[in-house]
Amino acid sequence: MAASRPEPLKERAPLMAFDYERVFADAVDGVREEKRYRVFTDLARIAGRFPHAVHHTETGPRDIVVWCSNDYLGMGQHPAVLEAFQDTASRLGVGAGGTRNISGNNHPLVMLERELADLHGKENALVFTSGFVSNEATISTLARLLPDCLILSDQLNHASMIEGVRRSGVEKKIFRHNDLEHLEDLLKAQDRERAKLIVFESVYSMDGDVGPVGRICDLAEKYGAMTYIDEVHAVGMYGPRGAGIAEREGEMARLDVIEGTLAKAYGCLGGYIAASNDIVDAVRCHAPGFIFTTALPPAIAAAATASIRHLKGSGAEREGQQRQAATTKHVLRSRGLPVMPSETHIVPLLVGDPELCKAASDRLLDRHGLYIQPINFPTVPRGTERLRITPTPFHDDELVGELGEALVETWSALGIPFANERIGVAA
Amino acid sequence: MAASRPEPLKERAPLMAFDYERVFADAVDGVREEKRYRVFTDLARIAGRFPHAVHHTETGPRDIVVWCSNDYLGMGQHPAVLEAFQDTASRLGVGAGGTRNISGNNHPLVMLERELADLHGKENALVFTSGFVSNEATISTLARLLPDCLILSDQLNHASMIEGVRRSGVEKKIFRHNDLEHLEDLLKAQDRERAKLIVFESVYSMDGDVGPVGRICDLAEKYGAMTYIDEVHAVGMYGPRGAGIAEREGEMARLDVIEGTLAKAYGCLGGYIAASNDIVDAVRCHAPGFIFTTALPPAIAAAATASIRHLKGSGAEREGQQRQAATTKHVLRSRGLPVMPSETHIVPLLVGDPELCKAASDRLLDRHGLYIQPINFPTVPRGTERLRITPTPFHDDELVGELGEALVETWSALGIPFANERIGVAA
Repeated sequence: MAASRPEPLKERAPLMAFDYERVFADAVDGVREEKRYRVFTDLARIAGRFPHAVHHTETGPRDIVVWCSNDYLGMGQHPAVLEAFQDTASRLGVGAGGTRNISGNNHPLVMLERELADLHGKENALVFTSGFVSNEATISTLARLLPDCLILSDQLNHASMIEGVRRSGVEKKIFRHNDLEHLEDLLKAQDRERAKLIVFESVYSMDGDVGPVGRICDLAEKYGAMTYIDEVHAVGMYGPRGAGIAEREGEMARLDVIEGTLAKAYGCLGGYIAASNDIVDAVRCHAPGFIFTTALPPAIAAAATASIRHLKGSGAEREGQQRQAATTKHVLRSRGLPVMPSETHIVPLLVGDPELCKAASDRLLDRHGLYIQPINFPTVPRGTERLRITPTPFHDDELVGELGEALVETWSALGIPFANERIGVAA
Repeated sequence: MAASRPEPLKERAPLMAFDYERVFADAVDGVREEKRYRVFTDLARIAGRFPHAVHHTETGPRDIVVWCSNDYLGMGQHPAVLEAFQDTASRLGVGAGGTRNISGNNHPLVMLERELADLHGKENALVFTSGFVSNEATISTLARLLPDCLILSDQLNHASMIEGVRRSGVEKKIFRHNDLEHLEDLLKAQDRERAKLIVFESVYSMDGDVGPVGRICDLAEKYGAMTYIDEVHAVGMYGPRGAGIAEREGEMARLDVIEGTLAKAYGCLGGYIAASNDIVDAVRCHAPGFIFTTALPPAIAAAATASIRHLKGSGAEREGQQRQAATTKHVLRSRGLPVMPSETHIVPLLVGDPELCKAASDRLLDRHGLYIQPINFPTVPRGTERLRITPTPFHDDELVGELGEALVETWSALGIPFANERIGVAA
């Protein structure tokens, strides 16, 4: 009888353990069911032929045109940027080899921070490995250092700012997007002496609208608040030297912290803040996400510096971008496509349904060789799913014409509503 | 009389606002008072002459030798790595131009992830902009997805792992460093069915000791826990193909998540995880720090792939590093210097006082042209302040001899205790 006994419980215990893989599989299935599962498009951009790129597919590589790059001015392939990148690597090697404090503080990075401080007219600047880290680390660190700080945060702020607000652990109030009255109501309800940090963006990347920078500064001064602006979709592209919307509007000096990126219009990698010596030093000394991470490679820093310097002196790329963005809006509107209102270089095209949005993107890529990523919830509210088009100076009139035709074909084939078929939607 | 009246309160209100700058200045002064204020050494490494570098000082540049780089094998200057970096940039440009999902998913990055999955014998891998982000994003995301998860975390885990644990918001228990009994007590006290995540490192970077990987896996299996290992100070340097301590000990398959870096022994930039498809996909779909950030530049990805491939096939760099680390320990000990016990390539030298530690580092740099960053609290416990020396294959016997002499001179001049002058301290 002993032979037919069940094994002791102890031996079978592994079968009763928590099923980890199932939880993670379910977490992915949930995303799939919400039609939010993303398959990354395997691309190789072609230096010198931007916005052309190679799309690696299962059946081999093919040529396409990218219409959704955040390398807004094509600076990632600019000869001066490439030369600084390659020349610095040949002299200093690839990686930085350490954190900023422990052997990684390379000379090109020191020079880049000086360039950034000068760009924004601030005493100092600090470079991070990404814009995400710069927002998260700076907002959370500043708010934690300020006793009993209240953060006032625009409703449409980027995920990295939201993470910074969350991680600070301080009280927060969300004001309605670009709503100055709501912001003033929230400020008014607080003691003037209380520390308050207003965090907002200049160019909001999904709608292409612009924050009322000057009037937010007015309110900050009136109610004794500190200001933090995210200019990642504006630096390089606005203002006489490309320092962003705040420069264009003459408001840079009134902002306490200007945050920007080197990975979009400057065509490289990394994020930064520009601010007073005290603010920069406080973040430098207290933010784990800055302290405990390897410094940016010298080649990246040198390339970014070359890009900033070029765009400080040259307005041609900015003019080209604005011209081609206006042309694109005009051509698409004239063809009846539902271009959403936008004050900037960003051209959002309303689809209004996640599956149609994905299908339109797939058709544009497969049939027309045009790559425009679908933008679905949670990046934008449900019902406002869209294609987000970012014309650069290199998207010439011929490419714009081809885009218009491909979109009309796609809209017709998939039955996506044209502008005149939409009622009550701002498009 | 009206003229001498004080201004109305309203007009003076700005003076009563919160004094932001003072708070930030105080926050920096606090760091200064604790002798923790850090001035970054302005360096330019010299490709082809590693570990030689240029130190930019106020009086001009001078040649020095770096003894504290985390480019542990000098791969940041390896010809194959440099060539991949420059060649890829010339073909694909500098930046990736977008997030992984929106136009930034470049082909070299896809190839790098395949290489990493192969290196660690896992189904898949995911690359992040830094090791810090990979730890923080993965630990917090996995723990949040697991219902009622308990994290068991080694007491000496890196700041990035601690941030991941914190940010997850789940219950955590800290086990004493490498203490299997303590870990087992904590595991035993929990229901077997409860989700549990053990997070630990293989090589602890400040002491150079090694976690008991296999025995932690034993406990994980016995009590139904999941395992997460940080191998950032081991990948490239241990195991027949350089996959780390877990490879050396034949334990890779038993670990659920292996986290590593491309910024230390591989000489580039970025962090990664290797794990099952489900785990990688769950992180890919749910971690804001992965989703909302620009992808690594293709040149960085290609350089990292070249570095991994080289070190998969070549053991010469690993052997050279182990040999020179052993030589360094031997030479310093033979000169009576207080080398702390270390099982790895890391050579910690005890000073035991923060000001003396800083003074020793300054003297080594100024007088001897040797750069070794002081390691003070909070990176290490008070009373164990140290110089952390990282010999590479390129620190030849002559350089080791010079190091020994310079250290003896410095120890004598500053009155730092030699090994035989210390009682009751393990050195």
